Amino acid sequence: MARDLSIAESCRRVKAEGGTVIPEPVVKEWLRERGVPVPDGRLVETASEAVRFANHRFYPVVLKMVSDRLLHKTEVGGVLTGIESETALYEAFDDMTEAARLARDPGFLGILVEEQLPAAPEIIVGLDNDPHFGPVLMVGTGGIFTDLLSDVSFRMLPVKKRDVVEMLSELKGRPLLEGFRGSAPADVKALADVIYGIARFASEIAPFFDSADFNPVLALPDGACVVDAKVMLADEERPRPFGFEKPRVHHLAGFFDPASVAVVGASASPGKIGNVIVDSLVNYEFKGRVYPVNPNREEIMEVRCYPSLSELPEAPELAVMVIDLADGPGLMRELAAMGVHNMLIVSGGGKELGGRREEVELEMARLARELDIRVVGPNCIGAFDGRTRFDSFFHHHDRLLRPPAGRMGFITQSGTWGCGFLEAAEVAGVSKMVSYGNRVDVDEGDLISYLADDPETAVIGSYVEGLSDGRKFLAAAREAVKAGKPVVVFKTGRTERSAKAAVSHTGAYGGSYRVYEGVLRQSGIITVDTFHEQIAACKALALQPAAHGPRAAMLSNGAGPMVNALDLFPSKGLELVKLKRGSVRSMRDHFSFFYLVENPVDVTGSASSEDYEFVIRTLLEDDRVDIIMPYFVFQDTPLDEGIVERLEKLLRGAKKPVVGCAAGGPYTKRMSDALEAIGVPVLPDVAQWVAAAAALVRWGAIKKKS
Amino acid sequence: MARDLSIAESCRRVKAEGGTVIPEPVVKEWLRERGVPVPDGRLVETASEAVRFANHRFYPVVLKMVSDRLLHKTEVGGVLTGIESETALYEAFDDMTEAARLARDPGFLGILVEEQLPAAPEIIVGLDNDPHFGPVLMVGTGGIFTDLLSDVSFRMLPVKKRDVVEMLSELKGRPLLEGFRGSAPADVKALADVIYGIARFASEIAPFFDSADFNPVLALPDGACVVDAKVMLADEERPRPFGFEKPRVHHLAGFFDPASVAVVGASASPGKIGNVIVDSLVNYEFKGRVYPVNPNREEIMEVRCYPSLSELPEAPELAVMVIDLADGPGLMRELAAMGVHNMLIVSGGGKELGGRREEVELEMARLARELDIRVVGPNCIGAFDGRTRFDSFFHHHDRLLRPPAGRMGFITQSGTWGCGFLEAAEVAGVSKMVSYGNRVDVDEGDLISYLADDPETAVIGSYVEGLSDGRKFLAAAREAVKAGKPVVVFKTGRTERSAKAAVSHTGAYGGSYRVYEGVLRQSGIITVDTFHEQIAACKALALQPAAHGPRAAMLSNGAGPMVNALDLFPSKGLELVKLKRGSVRSMRDHFSFFYLVENPVDVTGSASSEDYEFVIRTLLEDDRVDIIMPYFVFQDTPLDEGIVERLEKLLRGAKKPVVGCAAGGPYTKRMSDALEAIGVPVLPDVAQWVAAAAALVRWGAIKKKS
Repeated sequence: MARDLSIAESCRRVKAEGGTVIPEPVVKEWLRERGVPVPDGRLVETASEAVRFANHRFYPVVLKMVSDRLLHKTEVGGVLTGIESETALYEAFDDMTEAARLARDPGFLGILVEEQLPAAPEIIVGLDNDPHFGPVLMVGTGGIFTDLLSDVSFRMLPVKKRDVVEMLSELKGRPLLEGFRGSAPADVKALADVIYGIARFASEIAPFFDSADFNPVLALPDGACVVDAKVMLADEERPRPFGFEKPRVHHLAGFFDPASVAVVGASASPGKIGNVIVDSLVNYEFKGRVYPVNPNREEIMEVRCYPSLSELPEAPELAVMVIDLADGPGLMRELAAMGVHNMLIVSGGGKELGGRREEVELEMARLARELDIRVVGPNCIGAFDGRTRFDSFFHHHDRLLRPPAGRMGFITQSGTWGCGFLEAAEVAGVSKMVSYGNRVDVDEGDLISYLADDPETAVIGSYVEGLSDGRKFLAAAREAVKAGKPVVVFKTGRTERSAKAAVSHTGAYGGSYRVYEGVLRQSGIITVDTFHEQIAACKALALQPAAHGPRAAMLSNGAGPMVNALDLFPSKGLELVKLKRGSVRSMRDHFSFFYLVENPVDVTGSASSEDYEFVIRTLLEDDRVDIIMPYFVFQDTPLDEGIVERLEKLLRGAKKPVVGCAAGGPYTKRMSDALEAIGVPVLPDVAQWVAAAAALVRWGAIKKKS
Repeated sequence: MARDLSIAESCRRVKAEGGTVIPEPVVKEWLRERGVPVPDGRLVETASEAVRFANHRFYPVVLKMVSDRLLHKTEVGGVLTGIESETALYEAFDDMTEAARLARDPGFLGILVEEQLPAAPEIIVGLDNDPHFGPVLMVGTGGIFTDLLSDVSFRMLPVKKRDVVEMLSELKGRPLLEGFRGSAPADVKALADVIYGIARFASEIAPFFDSADFNPVLALPDGACVVDAKVMLADEERPRPFGFEKPRVHHLAGFFDPASVAVVGASASPGKIGNVIVDSLVNYEFKGRVYPVNPNREEIMEVRCYPSLSELPEAPELAVMVIDLADGPGLMRELAAMGVHNMLIVSGGGKELGGRREEVELEMARLARELDIRVVGPNCIGAFDGRTRFDSFFHHHDRLLRPPAGRMGFITQSGTWGCGFLEAAEVAGVSKMVSYGNRVDVDEGDLISYLADDPETAVIGSYVEGLSDGRKFLAAAREAVKAGKPVVVFKTGRTERSAKAAVSHTGAYGGSYRVYEGVLRQSGIITVDTFHEQIAACKALALQPAAHGPRAAMLSNGAGPMVNALDLFPSKGLELVKLKRGSVRSMRDHFSFFYLVENPVDVTGSASSEDYEFVIRTLLEDDRVDIIMPYFVFQDTPLDEGIVERLEKLLRGAKKPVVGCAAGGPYTKRMSDALEAIGVPVLPDVAQWVAAAAALVRWGAIKKKS
């Protein structure tokens, strides 16, 4: 195989000849040409060629079988190491020739003889064509750790050099590189260069690979070297491996501020979905015109009902559909004829049932483009706007609170979490919320892009089970971050594993949460681990400024929850700061000796609102403190309700974030709500408290970087 | 050093001679005598002795420096391995003699020559004299993993064989023993025997060791062998290494059902602690006699006030103290003179302030024993009884709900968590709650033992920051478990690390949460990771039967939360069961094709209470299902309120547990409370939901074992 072909030509030729893998010496030659160190070696056909190579250079050497088919080399005796002499080399060559014969590999191309490098910490570098994000880079602790511990970090290709540095810093096995147990420290800078070299090569070969393992990459004391390289080819060439659709935001305003709404499938029977939606639109705060559509009714709730769309007095701006999904395509054609561009489908029964129902969705996706109709749904609860008070919910107002207008936007694949978010935002408020369900047209990327540009939205929460177009989603999120709006993602469905496990180490992780974790981080997205953490993070980001660093100070009139919070600090990136001596001294002067005025500050059950105010003022003035975390035992009688007014005055215009916590019953909720109403989030549990603080710290770091 | 001395005699002699470590050959001889395999070896003084030993037996050999002082052998060149020949052995012996000279170790005793065993997976076994639990055994994945991953498991000594088996099964590195990457599987049975042998030896040497490392223990394909052994001696001999005080429960009833209560430090000023306590006792449901004591008042809230204890019309059964702690000892003498046996000290300002305040507590601890007064506190909120309605709280009833009588008992080091628990138990109810603060007398062990015997308590929750007597606590918990009452512990302050890190690997973990984790598990205690998980677990255990196994089935009218729950299943020991074909068929017959009737069952937003009832009945009848987990989107209008009555009928006398979840606002809370009131706990978030289910599964497993 000629080595002077371009990467593209070579990949196509291997495929044409029935190969599935780029032969190892070819990959290594490509790497070498790009300045990435590989062992000195030669592809040989006879033992004497191998011996000539080794005698002129060095022992020990290794022998490797070379093939353009997928081959677990080690299992067929295709790797022999530690060959120390000419005699041993002759013998090994014979053994391998025999092994190759037994393996009956039609892709067999010869035997690679290579210098053997000294033992050193091993890193695995990999490439995968991830189902959600396309070409991704993986870096992990190699050797035994890869299988046992899943100690890996992912980024989307192409990467920047600083991404590689960050990936290496994330590894639990990092100490192995730093002179572990008396061994010499590895040259981490050189290692990062080598990984970055692989990453740039990966961008060139991106149209062709399915997955790839560079395993191990040796992290030597004076450099790094790619010892093994396996590139699996994809079945199909991808002409635009990094391509994605641009987010499409046209007409989306119609889902939030429609002048008129038709409800297709309106019902007169209380409790029916088509009844509740009409009730919500006509009997509460929404001011737009509402047209129930139902051939069997003259009026519903004293509102005139129309037998069909064509009889409406005007083309509605938005149609909400609650009839059988099978009628969707027909309805779309009707809407198009009237010039309607917005359709929201609450009805379920689509692709989740498979078969013909899945086809209906595909048809609707096609029609959405063809007829220029933006479709939200199906299988969702739809949209809510805090300002216009529009909503498409089939939930009675006495069952589901509609929150006030606020600065939090939320988009969700699950309608249930949509309900949860709305009710948790009872005080902080919501700008816009969309549950998009099966997303035949409008998807996460479109919505994030729209909210990035929405003046009423300051923070965007996104609940994700799976993404329709990962790169589009991330591009939209980066746009939001650039516009100064944090994006907080909660991803579930974390345990999936790829079917590629058998082919490559890296492929085994395809589609897993490890990939999400890496690419979300790379894009400046804040991730959380529970839905309640997401609510907490969104509230904190909507109400408080970013933290300039991770140094937290706590205070409380009850110490238990602070002990618990401290346990969570390390995993969430928070640090307990040592207060300035002046801060401690001024608190000691001010308080009785019962108060413990080190961080965390224990103001005891006797603390009044004035005590809280004094401590928080002291912490605001202490420039070692980046974030202030008060816990309130509101049940303690000495803590008077003046706390609300005091904090409102004290924190007006403060540049340092304050995030509170309080657990309890109705009184505690009332006081927490009162503080949230003046912009101090008070979370009901410690995990949420710490997550909220961590989000502000992370947001500060993201802003600094970008 | 003579080898025929008893362990005790030897340890004492080493100490007497200034040694701090039992010499390695001595430990190995003791192990060998007890049937624990160690390498063949000999302590020698000359090179020719070493050569004679090796020539008669085998090469390769290893040489090790032997000392009775703490010595990091490897760092001073005190270990040489891979010695393959007589020549090499002479050379190595010279090197080591030189190294010994340079190390200037006054405890140097000679050089140990030993057979060198083949490479194999390494296990670390250790002993520690833990500050809370005394002698403990550690088992961990050895070699590089010990330092990097803290992959260790602890149990309190003495252990049973099955504890050792369980410890091995907990290791993340377990796959290394099972034929990892093509190597031969280790003889795990032999390994467990060796570890159990070490554990029995540990019991013999328990009065003497401070900590010990047996590192590595080689897990060979045909046996196991202790390759290195280091036993550090404690400064003081412990005559009763496994001893602990028996829980003391006498007089404790007086804290829950006092016929009369004196409040020493009663106040007439609203908002003062001494005022709120009187208010709570006289103006609400408590029926006992209440005597405010304050020399400056004639009456408080229309109740006659007394100038001093001696003027009371009777000796009160309980004295609640809210005056300065410094007056505590005097008060105790007064109480003793009157024959009072119960004192509850709300006042803080004790040992947390150090100095003289700490001494006051020590004095009170002494007096408690001497005068036979049981003391709860100081620095606490005290006690609550659901039946008698007694409480000692300084929290107004309009700030802190007092829950109804119920089956949950709760004891807590933190008063704040006490408040949190009471209010979270608003529906499920509480039997008895005690916040014990600085516990000068009554401690966790006493209280658990009391609740173990309390007919009103069915489950015991315990919030722990640190324990006063770990073995007493565990003994009491085992007693409760034996009485059929689950004990649920939430431990915070998890990040402490021992000062012994420099001395031994095992000692480095002393007092850490890793130790707690192991010994709590060993004692049949259920552990949780957040306070909200503790509430959830206690509710589930109080209201529902134990699960017979880990196989869970979920159902919901909104799928998102189930996706999230599934992510948490593996780490919490739950399994998603595949339903019996008959169950699926009967659901398919019953429902429209929109319902997805595999597990998890998605009954869609159209589901009614009848649908829930049908699915839950089907799951009750499916004997593959051990636990049923419904999620309720109560906001969805089709889900009617008949659900409460239906489930009440359906679940009457059911033998299989049902645990629900629902997130939302006031309506959701009302419905969740209604279900909790008929005995179905409905938790407000997914983490709590899964924790509740996991607790029922764990309790089932504990009951099976005991």
